[in-house]
Amino acid sequence: MPIVFITRRERFSAAHKLARPEWSAEQNQATFGKCSNPNWHGHNYELWVTVKGEPSAETGFVVDLSKVSAIMQETVISKLDHKNIDLDVDFMRGRLSSTENLAIAIWEQLREPIEALGCSLHAVKVQETENNYVEYHGQ
Amino acid sequence: MPIVFITRRERFSAAHKLARPEWSAEQNQATFGKCSNPNWHGHNYELWVTVKGEPSAETGFVVDLSKVSAIMQETVISKLDHKNIDLDVDFMRGRLSSTENLAIAIWEQLREPIEALGCSLHAVKVQETENNYVEYHGQ
Amino acid sequence: MPIVFITRRERFSAAHKLARPEWSAEQNQATFGKCSNPNWHGHNYELWVTVKGEPSAETGFVVDLSKVSAIMQETVISKLDHKNIDLDVDFMRGRLSSTENLAIAIWEQLREPIEALGCSLHAVKVQETENNYVEYHGQ
Amino acid sequence: MPIVFITRRERFSAAHKLARPEWSAEQNQATFGKCSNPNWHGHNYELWVTVKGEPSAETGFVVDLSKVSAIMQETVISKLDHKNIDLDVDFMRGRLSSTENLAIAIWEQLREPIEALGCSLHAVKVQETENNYVEYHGQ
Amino acid sequence: MPIVFITRRERFSAAHKLARPEWSAEQNQATFGKCSNPNWHGHNYELWVTVKGEPSAETGFVVDLSKVSAIMQETVISKLDHKNIDLDVDFMRGRLSSTENLAIAIWEQLREPIEALGCSLHAVKVQETENNYVEYHGQ
Amino acid sequence: MPIVFITRRERFSAAHKLARPEWSAEQNQATFGKCSNPNWHGHNYELWVTVKGEPSAETGFVVDLSKVSAIMQETVISKLDHKNIDLDVDFMRGRLSSTENLAIAIWEQLREPIEALGCSLHAVKVQETENNYVEYHGQ
Repeated sequence: MPIVFITRRERFSAAHKLARPEWSAEQNQATFGKCSNPNWHGHNYELWVTVKGEPSAETGFVVDLSKVSAIMQETVISKLDHKNIDLDVDFMRGRLSSTENLAIAIWEQLREPIEALGCSLHAVKVQETENNYVEYHGQ
Repeated sequence: MPIVFITRRERFSAAHKLARPEWSAEQNQATFGKCSNPNWHGHNYELWVTVKGEPSAETGFVVDLSKVSAIMQETVISKLDHKNIDLDVDFMRGRLSSTENLAIAIWEQLREPIEALGCSLHAVKVQETENNYVEYHGQ
Repeated sequence: MPIVFITRRERFSAAHKLARPEWSAEQNQATFGKCSNPNWHGHNYELWVTVKGEPSAETGFVVDLSKVSAIMQETVISKLDHKNIDLDVDFMRGRLSSTENLAIAIWEQLREPIEALGCSLHAVKVQETENNYVEYHGQ
Repeated sequence: MPIVFITRRERFSAAHKLARPEWSAEQNQATFGKCSNPNWHGHNYELWVTVKGEPSAETGFVVDLSKVSAIMQETVISKLDHKNIDLDVDFMRGRLSSTENLAIAIWEQLREPIEALGCSLHAVKVQETENNYVEYHGQ
Repeated sequence: MPIVFITRRERFSAAHKLARPEWSAEQNQATFGKCSNPNWHGHNYELWVTVKGEPSAETGFVVDLSKVSAIMQETVISKLDHKNIDLDVDFMRGRLSSTENLAIAIWEQLREPIEALGCSLHAVKVQETENNYVEYHGQ
Repeated sequence: MPIVFITRRERFSAAHKLARPEWSAEQNQATFGKCSNPNWHGHNYELWVTVKGEPSAETGFVVDLSKVSAIMQETVISKLDHKNIDLDVDFMRGRLSSTENLAIAIWEQLREPIEALGCSLHAVKVQETENNYVEYHGQ
């Protein structure tokens, strides 16, 4: 039985910073560099979600990709887009907003509703700039 | 012995639609949305083919990539480019032209001639828009 | 007074062909090449619309870009996306669907509603593939 | 004498919002939509600066582009990158951070040092997302 | 009568360096930096050629773009692709291979054959890296 | 424990050719085509390096990506950028500069310093043109 991977991209623009509140400005600067600037900075993030499964004989679809897109929008994008990741986003509360932590948290939000569609969540990729991205495949 | 993966991109522009002829327009619309519009639509598709093998000591090549490109052109691109996937393409006859089915069918066309070059076919990736793509690695 | 240009991109996927019905298949092939294939082909088109004007002292906007986007969607994209340009699009009736003619027709659709926003339509750019695009600035 | 245009891109990641402090949250939301969210959002901005002039017979250069890049870095990028445009940037003080205003302010920062290199500043382009950008050519 | 601009991209990969033979290595290094390294370096160049004219009532074309592409290939790309710009290219003999000089020389090669097609050459754009490009519009 | 993959891109522009000195020009041309042209050609290469590990509870980082970038710059980019791969690069001495061999050699340069950061080197990807790239994951 052929297993196929299908990927959907959505985008969000958000503010964040990397700084531990219990650390001094100097310690944050030494560890996180310009990412610790106190007044925030931001990015145009790209989120790529890959699911896998066997295409249906009837539709040729692993999954209706518009449903994957809707889950991404409702569960993740609507909470992150034009928001501050550190102040506004419930699923990031208490977590430093490194791209690594963001990818893990997005995976956690998506896994259940994606699998309720009858396919498996394979990968979450978060691209922060044209020069860096993170991928997470679950534990 | 080092195994290296090498990927070649080719492109084709084609028309298609997603609709089961035995279904009503309403049922097709409910299942496939705007992709079922009766007069077709189309895309600039990108096809990325990845092969793997050990580089030759003499040439440094896993495979002469111009031969991979030629196989892609003769076997796949020439049949799809500026064509209607549903009406014109022998290897898609009787198959709904979902990106998933397209990737599987392209894999089937490429596997034998690629392996005749002395390397393995590793992945076929078909990108339909800047927001979706499908990957297939064989069974 | 500073004049600023602001550009919005929207996208559509459509089928079309280039062929004059009163010509033979041979003549169409000689003139339009593979673009004349009878069963259509298609593209992911990008539409870039540039308007110009003086930024408002109150908002800093030449125009509310979400209104430009809405006009593009209602007037143009909703008629072209997942459609056949030659069969389904009222404003292309009786016109060969060359990218040049498409850019002119889109300009004609957009000029009045864009100017009703209080800015000038400066340019319409239609990108058909990664290797070709057309620009039109009106007469 | 041939006049040639040469363009350099630099990038910055910054936070901002669009909101007038003397307006209510409702009025800001009605005018600026999600861009007015109080806790900021952000973007990966691209800055494209075009200068023009006659190439030197000796070097073939309109200008040493590494000097244009250095001016962009010192005058603009170092003040914007990983900063909050509304709180941290001297040349944006008292200006709403619309992309239009940002392009005008960047032009004002660059014109004098660019012209001290012996060429003319032709255009400043600020790309905020993959779907919008602004261009300014001076008054 | 509507004037439309149409653009075609072709690509070439070439080696070059920037150094005046009558200068010392130090003087070349001071003027051209790492671009003067004696053993050459290289780029994937993109060439964008824009022509303008009135679309034909019969074809909808300003010009048959496949003819523009063929002229670009024969006149320019075949001489530059997988070549050394400073050693192998007749139309660059005696000229420093700055992007500015390259754009001017390409314009000179293209103007006559493009205009023989019945349209005007409007612009030659040469992109050297993702961060720099040059445009020339003739004298 | 969650394993996350993080990728950094750096770029270099270099000259090279593919030709065995002990072969005739004809044999090199038959094997390597235009890549064997004696006076070199060149590319804008992109290098994507992927490391993997568990994010630190304190920083949210698998690794400080600026350190990965610095290792890439010092170990690889500074030796390749604006250089001739066949003449100037110690770690390519005696190796044909196929993209496959280049990816393997870059892996060898990076593995030790990357692992000294406390994470694993997962993949080296070298993109030579927009149509081809190579990936290596070690032996």
